[in-house]
Amino acid sequence: MESIAPKTADVIASALLARIKAGEFSGGRLPAERALSEAFSTTRITLREALGKLEAQGVIYRELRRGWFIAPPRLIYNPLYHSHFHAMAAEQGRHASTEVIAAQKVSAQGAIAAALMLEEGETVFCIRRLRRIDGRAVLYVEHYLNPHFFPGLLSEDLTRSLTDLYDQRYGIRYGGARFTILPGPLPDVAAPALNVAAGSPGLLITRINRNQQKQVIDCDCEYWRYDALCVEVEA
Amino acid sequence: MESIAPKTADVIASALLARIKAGEFSGGRLPAERALSEAFSTTRITLREALGKLEAQGVIYRELRRGWFIAPPRLIYNPLYHSHFHAMAAEQGRHASTEVIAAQKVSAQGAIAAALMLEEGETVFCIRRLRRIDGRAVLYVEHYLNPHFFPGLLSEDLTRSLTDLYDQRYGIRYGGARFTILPGPLPDVAAPALNVAAGSPGLLITRINRNQQKQVIDCDCEYWRYDALCVEVEA
Repeated sequence: MESIAPKTADVIASALLARIKAGEFSGGRLPAERALSEAFSTTRITLREALGKLEAQGVIYRELRRGWFIAPPRLIYNPLYHSHFHAMAAEQGRHASTEVIAAQKVSAQGAIAAALMLEEGETVFCIRRLRRIDGRAVLYVEHYLNPHFFPGLLSEDLTRSLTDLYDQRYGIRYGGARFTILPGPLPDVAAPALNVAAGSPGLLITRINRNQQKQVIDCDCEYWRYDALCVEVEA
Repeated sequence: MESIAPKTADVIASALLARIKAGEFSGGRLPAERALSEAFSTTRITLREALGKLEAQGVIYRELRRGWFIAPPRLIYNPLYHSHFHAMAAEQGRHASTEVIAAQKVSAQGAIAAALMLEEGETVFCIRRLRRIDGRAVLYVEHYLNPHFFPGLLSEDLTRSLTDLYDQRYGIRYGGARFTILPGPLPDVAAPALNVAAGSPGLLITRINRNQQKQVIDCDCEYWRYDALCVEVEA
């Protein structure tokens, strides 16, 4: 005799996990919540609790207004090796793409001026980019560059690797870096681009880069989705 | 004339932040939610929304069954420099303490066996410790040690620095490390020790350590509160 007790969120989470592992949801997207609650003969409230459990385990993730998706593998990322993002993704069998949101001159303030060893208010280049892995937005980044090293930069193709552009156009290679990793809530500037609610957990990786002569040339402020990367460093 | 419109969570969050910054809540603990909602003439629901906003900004944090606290500064942490936790805290003007939860022989499984380059099922030492900064639990750590290098270890005082113990008792110093940083939900084993709900965001830092002869000697699995540290690495 089948039990008529209402199914708990744990039971539904296990059943859904088994179906995900069996590869049932092709395309990586879960059906709508209403369809799922019907399929599992449960209420919307219990279904959401079950989805929340799988989200907490990193199995699925939610996109604003788009629904639930199966979480892809994390990108392995070493912040000490410069961030030829497209090559790094390709080495891991993933497809990277880059969208330039804005590229402009701005006046350096506070932490940015200090990082670039410039006076408060000096002009710097600011490039804002959104980077996707296999179509999923995982990284919103603001690059701040000392324009002294990069004349004419804003006229270049900024969808390509800055590492390559520095090398091929300016003869500049990276010669040292310092980075900090700050776990924290994603701010208003980054969250919408990453399709998450502002305040969702994220990683802010700030990197200060030097050239071969050990001069500070740029500073990157990277805002990562919390569930998109695994940082790996060897020394 | 004073507005009679209900105060929004944003207004209350700003007012509370101003009072926190003014140093009004000595001891670092906020009054109970009921007292706060009376003080701000608002409902419990709106108050909680305001508290949630300040929590998302890292200004305050919640402990299970204990209420709300003002977040202390983050510990600056470089996983490449070995983790003389007490000395690191002292250099930053903080007080560290260590509690040994358990120290025993276990059989190495899966990732732990692989990390230590041992066969599945071989015996290793496992030390579970809880580390506090200024009295606040910030790090739950499981150390797995290859017993070959550390005869008699379980009889030692394990509240002290393992770095010191390795050096003074066994003549072993660290000679290289590889670490990964995985942002993710805190598992059941770590969350209660850190006074947070299971599934709360945390950082798992896994470090594989070698001795002067480059042999793998131990592996640490560190579970950090999300808001307790800032990782800093220079190369």
